[in-house]
Amino acid sequence: MATEGVTGEIVKPHGPHGYSHDKESHLKRLRRIEGQLRGLQRMVEEDVYCIDILTQVSASTKGLQSFALQLLEEHLRHCVAAAAVGGGPEIDEKVAEATAAIARLLRT
Amino acid sequence: MATEGVTGEIVKPHGPHGYSHDKESHLKRLRRIEGQLRGLQRMVEEDVYCIDILTQVSASTKGLQSFALQLLEEHLRHCVAAAAVGGGPEIDEKVAEATAAIARLLRT
Amino acid sequence: MATEGVTGEIVKPHGPHGYSHDKESHLKRLRRIEGQLRGLQRMVEEDVYCIDILTQVSASTKGLQSFALQLLEEHLRHCVAAAAVGGGPEIDEKVAEATAAIARLLRT
Amino acid sequence: MATEGVTGEIVKPHGPHGYSHDKESHLKRLRRIEGQLRGLQRMVEEDVYCIDILTQVSASTKGLQSFALQLLEEHLRHCVAAAAVGGGPEIDEKVAEATAAIARLLRT
Repeated sequence: MATEGVTGEIVKPHGPHGYSHDKESHLKRLRRIEGQLRGLQRMVEEDVYCIDILTQVSASTKGLQSFALQLLEEHLRHCVAAAAVGGGPEIDEKVAEATAAIARLLRT
Repeated sequence: MATEGVTGEIVKPHGPHGYSHDKESHLKRLRRIEGQLRGLQRMVEEDVYCIDILTQVSASTKGLQSFALQLLEEHLRHCVAAAAVGGGPEIDEKVAEATAAIARLLRT
Repeated sequence: MATEGVTGEIVKPHGPHGYSHDKESHLKRLRRIEGQLRGLQRMVEEDVYCIDILTQVSASTKGLQSFALQLLEEHLRHCVAAAAVGGGPEIDEKVAEATAAIARLLRT
Repeated sequence: MATEGVTGEIVKPHGPHGYSHDKESHLKRLRRIEGQLRGLQRMVEEDVYCIDILTQVSASTKGLQSFALQLLEEHLRHCVAAAAVGGGPEIDEKVAEATAAIARLLRT
């Protein structure tokens, strides 16, 4: 359950969360995408053909999307499921949060 | 016009291309997204709440998408327009390439 | 729980489901999008400018996406939550199904 | 070139446009998607399982996306290319319009 932090901002519970058991593979994927971002910078510096740069952008976006889907699956399986089992109003907050996150992913 | 490289691979013309005149702003944007990828790794290491990580993923994907749209606009304005003015079959290749790149962006 | 139908195909449980309580508003939205599809056909028949047709396509796609998000929210709140409360392996099937559906939505 | 209509609204040139030569296949595709919209309404009326409805939504969105990509390709090949050959400022308007249409498609 979210609580209020010292400065009044909403402090969401630090984990471990559903994804924590698979941290190393998530970090590995993010490091690879970080490397692709450096690659994109080299392509721009070296005046590589626009279409080849756009192809790399799609590969990086796809990597980010796969990471997001894995995190979402873990979130549904752990955080949302736990809120359902716990009963009470928290399930509504969790479902609304997850749906809003999915909507943001759909818009990009 | 694409030509064959020494080892037979298709060597697309190195620029400068349409985006070259605005390189510094493209590089600045890519460096910022690269920084966001490092931020995502810290969030995973620190067991930050899943939804907050997904929000950051959407911000990074949106940044990549804006970069792609700018590059695409420059590509249409320079490379595709030049092929049209040049006449001959190159315009078909350029349009097919651009449409395929847009399709890839739509699928991610 | 999914069961096998007479001809061996997987027969998923007919509802009512999470969305059933709001059927009329879902049907109203789908009828409007259906009308937009007829509008698109008229635009093509009347040789309307390409960009104006593409603008209408985005509006219709957005309508479909909003419908999908609402259905997804209801599915998480009812079907997935019920599977979590029920305990046992069904939650894994429900989460995997929902994630696969989200992945398909992201790819279009 | 866009001109001002009788009531001052911007009247974009009625075709024929790039897509006009392939009208029948575009209309056939739009009719099929219209039929899918009616199918979605039946699924909702019959309380079909949420995930199966979401699968159909993705199929319809994909159909709309393919239609949009075909129209875009024709637009680039004819309207944008013609503006480039014509010289003058119209190419900038055409490229800006096409990029904005692509951006809208990316956001859905």
